[in-house]
Amino acid sequence: MLEQKLNALGITLQRPPKVIGSYTPIIKTGSLLFVSGQLPIELGSNPPNVLYKGKVGNEISLSNGKEAARLCTINALMHLKDFLPSLDNIEKFVKLTGYVNCDVSFTNHPEVINGASDLLVHLFGQKGRHSRVSVGLSSLPLNSAVEIDFIVEVGT
Amino acid sequence: MLEQKLNALGITLQRPPKVIGSYTPIIKTGSLLFVSGQLPIELGSNPPNVLYKGKVGNEISLSNGKEAARLCTINALMHLKDFLPSLDNIEKFVKLTGYVNCDVSFTNHPEVINGASDLLVHLFGQKGRHSRVSVGLSSLPLNSAVEIDFIVEVGT
Amino acid sequence: MLEQKLNALGITLQRPPKVIGSYTPIIKTGSLLFVSGQLPIELGSNPPNVLYKGKVGNEISLSNGKEAARLCTINALMHLKDFLPSLDNIEKFVKLTGYVNCDVSFTNHPEVINGASDLLVHLFGQKGRHSRVSVGLSSLPLNSAVEIDFIVEVGT
Repeated sequence: MLEQKLNALGITLQRPPKVIGSYTPIIKTGSLLFVSGQLPIELGSNPPNVLYKGKVGNEISLSNGKEAARLCTINALMHLKDFLPSLDNIEKFVKLTGYVNCDVSFTNHPEVINGASDLLVHLFGQKGRHSRVSVGLSSLPLNSAVEIDFIVEVGT
Repeated sequence: MLEQKLNALGITLQRPPKVIGSYTPIIKTGSLLFVSGQLPIELGSNPPNVLYKGKVGNEISLSNGKEAARLCTINALMHLKDFLPSLDNIEKFVKLTGYVNCDVSFTNHPEVINGASDLLVHLFGQKGRHSRVSVGLSSLPLNSAVEIDFIVEVGT
Repeated sequence: MLEQKLNALGITLQRPPKVIGSYTPIIKTGSLLFVSGQLPIELGSNPPNVLYKGKVGNEISLSNGKEAARLCTINALMHLKDFLPSLDNIEKFVKLTGYVNCDVSFTNHPEVINGASDLLVHLFGQKGRHSRVSVGLSSLPLNSAVEIDFIVEVGT
């Protein structure tokens, strides 16, 4: 059912690329899933291609910053789909931490991270409503414009 | 009882303003509450007025930075009071993440966030002692001087 | 057994210095331990001496940045050993948040935090694999090069 909503948005979640390294995209503890920091990686790109690079408010417009936050969220859903029997197993989104790459004068971080929040509520309804924090970073991995990590509750 | 301690400090918690948007101030999962990032918003201001703006160590003194951290915490308590039957339902404070808006040469983040930590221990005693991280951000929403999010355990 | 692996690396965990203040190194909630932000403090130094100071990529080389992340992790293990009956009580590492002190052009945060991740997997094997986020901060407490906080699951 979630898949259908995604498809209606023109989004098809592929299998994520294998992560090389000592950390993993998702760890489960009790009924919580901790999702590693997600970058706005182009779906299906291999090697992974960060689609939005640079400081939001400078090289990246506010509108593209929101798109970046939305794409981070789609990458998280890709990993969640790979980890769970189905995205419908998601009970609720608990917490988003939204990191915006920007310079010292930027003040509109919440609007950027709304690109993530709005998609979750569109897809999951009441279960998509989450707690959140948005902050401004002076730099992010691979010069990504946005990075977001997630805590998700699943049925047991 | 908690309310009395707050009143003794001259603090009266009002109903929080309605949050417009896709996220919410608090999400409960199991016995944990995740409180969204709190800004130092003037109590009772409507529309919400961020009382401490700018970089701590520059436009904002260390002492006012501590006040800002304290006010973030009072805003968190306002939301917790609204969410819980009573603030006395709080079992313990688990974790604070303290984000300080400052420039690249600032090094005294822990002293700023002590404004939050000291208030919690003053009000909640042993239950107010928490784990914590303090970091320096190049920018924060609305140019807020400090932002803090909280994880709280409640009785079930 | 964990202690033996540590000793084989030439690491001896001493009792941590008493923390003065309103926060504490570790809070337990359910089966989770939240470990406060750890700095790369020289083992056994008293008063605590931050061994790696400055911006990674500038005053601190990438290689020393990794060492700093590794030392943050050893400090976390020191607190975990002090808190738990034994490090063997650790069920798994759930989440690392890696904060790298660096300037606006730095992009290699994941490689820095690998200094932490690789040590955990070396010591704990599959239980050491964790979810993670790495971000770039414009400043950190005491001008530390790296700060890391941890969420750990223990047996009940």
